[in-house]
Amino acid sequence: MRRFASLAVIAAVLSAGAAAAQDAEAIRTAEQLRDRAMQGSGAYAVVEEITTRFGPRLAGTEAEQRAAAWGEAYLRREGFQNVRQETFPLAVWTRGIDRAEIVGDHAQPLSVVALGGSGATAEGGVEAEAVIFETYQQMLDAPEGALRGKIAVVLQETVRMQDGSGYGVTSTIRGQGPEEAARRGAVGFLLRSLGTHDHRFAHTGATRWLDEPIPSFALSPPDAEQLARIAALSNRPLRLRLHSGAGRVLEGRSQNVIAEVRGREAPEEVIVIGAHMDSWDLGTGAIDDAAGIAIVTRAARLIADLPERPRRTIRVVWFGAEEVSQPGGTGLAGGRDYVTRHRETFDRHVAASESDFGARPIYSLALPAGFSDQTFLAAARRVLTPIGVNVSPAPNQGGGPDIIPMATAGVPTFRLNQDGSDYFDTHHTVDDVIDRIEPEDLDQNVAAWAAVLWLMADSEVSLRPAS
Amino acid sequence: MRRFASLAVIAAVLSAGAAAAQDAEAIRTAEQLRDRAMQGSGAYAVVEEITTRFGPRLAGTEAEQRAAAWGEAYLRREGFQNVRQETFPLAVWTRGIDRAEIVGDHAQPLSVVALGGSGATAEGGVEAEAVIFETYQQMLDAPEGALRGKIAVVLQETVRMQDGSGYGVTSTIRGQGPEEAARRGAVGFLLRSLGTHDHRFAHTGATRWLDEPIPSFALSPPDAEQLARIAALSNRPLRLRLHSGAGRVLEGRSQNVIAEVRGREAPEEVIVIGAHMDSWDLGTGAIDDAAGIAIVTRAARLIADLPERPRRTIRVVWFGAEEVSQPGGTGLAGGRDYVTRHRETFDRHVAASESDFGARPIYSLALPAGFSDQTFLAAARRVLTPIGVNVSPAPNQGGGPDIIPMATAGVPTFRLNQDGSDYFDTHHTVDDVIDRIEPEDLDQNVAAWAAVLWLMADSEVSLRPAS
Repeated sequence: MRRFASLAVIAAVLSAGAAAAQDAEAIRTAEQLRDRAMQGSGAYAVVEEITTRFGPRLAGTEAEQRAAAWGEAYLRREGFQNVRQETFPLAVWTRGIDRAEIVGDHAQPLSVVALGGSGATAEGGVEAEAVIFETYQQMLDAPEGALRGKIAVVLQETVRMQDGSGYGVTSTIRGQGPEEAARRGAVGFLLRSLGTHDHRFAHTGATRWLDEPIPSFALSPPDAEQLARIAALSNRPLRLRLHSGAGRVLEGRSQNVIAEVRGREAPEEVIVIGAHMDSWDLGTGAIDDAAGIAIVTRAARLIADLPERPRRTIRVVWFGAEEVSQPGGTGLAGGRDYVTRHRETFDRHVAASESDFGARPIYSLALPAGFSDQTFLAAARRVLTPIGVNVSPAPNQGGGPDIIPMATAGVPTFRLNQDGSDYFDTHHTVDDVIDRIEPEDLDQNVAAWAAVLWLMADSEVSLRPAS
Repeated sequence: MRRFASLAVIAAVLSAGAAAAQDAEAIRTAEQLRDRAMQGSGAYAVVEEITTRFGPRLAGTEAEQRAAAWGEAYLRREGFQNVRQETFPLAVWTRGIDRAEIVGDHAQPLSVVALGGSGATAEGGVEAEAVIFETYQQMLDAPEGALRGKIAVVLQETVRMQDGSGYGVTSTIRGQGPEEAARRGAVGFLLRSLGTHDHRFAHTGATRWLDEPIPSFALSPPDAEQLARIAALSNRPLRLRLHSGAGRVLEGRSQNVIAEVRGREAPEEVIVIGAHMDSWDLGTGAIDDAAGIAIVTRAARLIADLPERPRRTIRVVWFGAEEVSQPGGTGLAGGRDYVTRHRETFDRHVAASESDFGARPIYSLALPAGFSDQTFLAAARRVLTPIGVNVSPAPNQGGGPDIIPMATAGVPTFRLNQDGSDYFDTHHTVDDVIDRIEPEDLDQNVAAWAAVLWLMADSEVSLRPAS
């Protein structure tokens, strides 16, 4: 026993020595990638290019298609491999006029935007009494028919949180609220914007795509408070007039744009990194999500520039149609299309993640529950700590919206968590423009992505649960 | 000689002693007024009342008239004397649709607002090539006819300055630019908003009222930069499409609302303190100028609450129609009407001033050039220094916009200068709502106004040049 034990120890030490040398080399490369990105990643220029050339890129519109076509050419020019578009059918919503006003004694216009997927009013608009709810639960507590012929108004506020979980709480109001209001007889629906700002612009986003949608709007936060103040002035019910010229077309299309840094040794082992090209129609989709496109693409490009490609393939996916709801209550059409086309290769999908939470610095790397590869963890800590990124003690909760269909199909996910404290000041509003972005913040994002990608792609690390 | 000299000295000393006692009493009262205001002036509640009840109060509209009627009743309720409305005719401009978009390769909407007084487009809008000028001077340097059939775009930026003088430089572009562009053949005019913010809302304001106005707009600051970026993408001229449904009516009316704290000893000696009730139609006119209304009214009310009224009369004027231009190139219709009606009493108008520069703290009291009443100056310093207000070493440059016609007619002016560093982040935009105001800042304003008013009204101080 003793001799065998000794031999085993020697073998382990020898192996550890070789592994340690390899690890040191991987860390050195990851550090170089990180430092190059921090010195200027080029990500800001990509955001500028996309937002300037194409402006808003509402899913299914010509602007989104033109951006995708440009993207395909750009990715080829940048030297990526296997560059292609994968198109898919899409139901398309378009905004028309969207206006709301208080009528009567305190007549005044309100700053609103129609919700994505919501319905139009008749030509002259709809005028009705408002029923105001401080919280969504209060509206849900109203019985069927209680809102017959009325306009439901939900004033619940979205709480500012670093990880964006305040939005997680209230996004149900936008998604389900119009349907629940309609079920109770409402002829219109307004909610306080799911935003944390106090400026006079409202926050759009998708509501569930209904067969017979009611006109539905978000109020700017100051207008939500104004409405509450005006309602408090008088005992008489407040009356609102709504106009929406929203349109809906069932037969459109969108597309994912795909490019690869092909793996050196195990090209069939794929790490998917994504972001989405479509945006809401109000801003130019700078933080949501040209920033994500720029971050993951520049990170992959830094790796492609190395003298040696990584062991595994890095696949960059610019998803289409992330933002919009679809008939039948689905969404994430690009993420779903990716699953349909690539499901058979998912056993060789090492991991997937998306950058879709704005343009502020990353503060942590989150890995799947149970992940315990100490070599990887030690390397990640060593490379990321100097740029303000922790390895999160909490397990990863998901890889990003477009990754959800893949994760559901069994692909492991990780996340580089960005500071979202001010994300909902801008997200889904007219104010989502490049002016909101600091180039240095994007550089830090690219640095973290490039370093983590290298450590994952040039190794045999597994993110799957131990079987 | 010696005896007479001695007697004169004795008389002077006796008189100085009595005066000193009187001064000390005046200072004590001014300090009490100041401290009461700092503990809670009630000004914020007045701003809330006006902005909530009436929303935007565009000059000549029913909203402005309703606000004035409410104001008259409010001022009576508050115990002011001689409360009345003085109405005057007004040409009224109204906004309709106002939209601009880039057409062609980089098609996208622009965030714009039509300028007050500007003209409508034909039904389907106007589409034309844009000619972009970095500065206004560049446009002025273009010869007659050089812009024939084109849309002139001036991208000059407004500089952020504490005293607002950056706006003084660029406001000419808005006032004269459309006329100068039209003279050179332009069919439309756009300027970068005269705002210092970088959010996606544009800044309106009056342009000169022309007989045949061209459609004219302000671009939000991010849109001005976007336009410059897009123009730089291609050698082909940029084309724009503009829509404006602006309307103009010659026969409307507006009104000044007047109230007094009647003087105890010399009621015919009048100190006019003003602000304006009208606002632009985009926001609810909180900082411009419900704040001013609240500040001067609460200051006068604090004085009215004293056991003894001041020697002189304090006249509060809520001016109408400050914002808009009028046919013939005039403006300040409320200020002009005041002069027409009251000119004959101007020899007994001690001074006039307006609060119309937002809701931030006051940093200095400015008095007319040559003012040298050391007793007043010493008292003012003593009372104002503790709340962060200097007596300005520079002479006063004017009493506020509505005071200009009075000043031109010879009434002396003074000014309590407010910090305007962020005034043009909000001024004339949708964002001019109560959310921009800190109640404590208003309290400091009321404190300074009440103290200065008392020192002026309960004395014989003269602001006129020594004759």
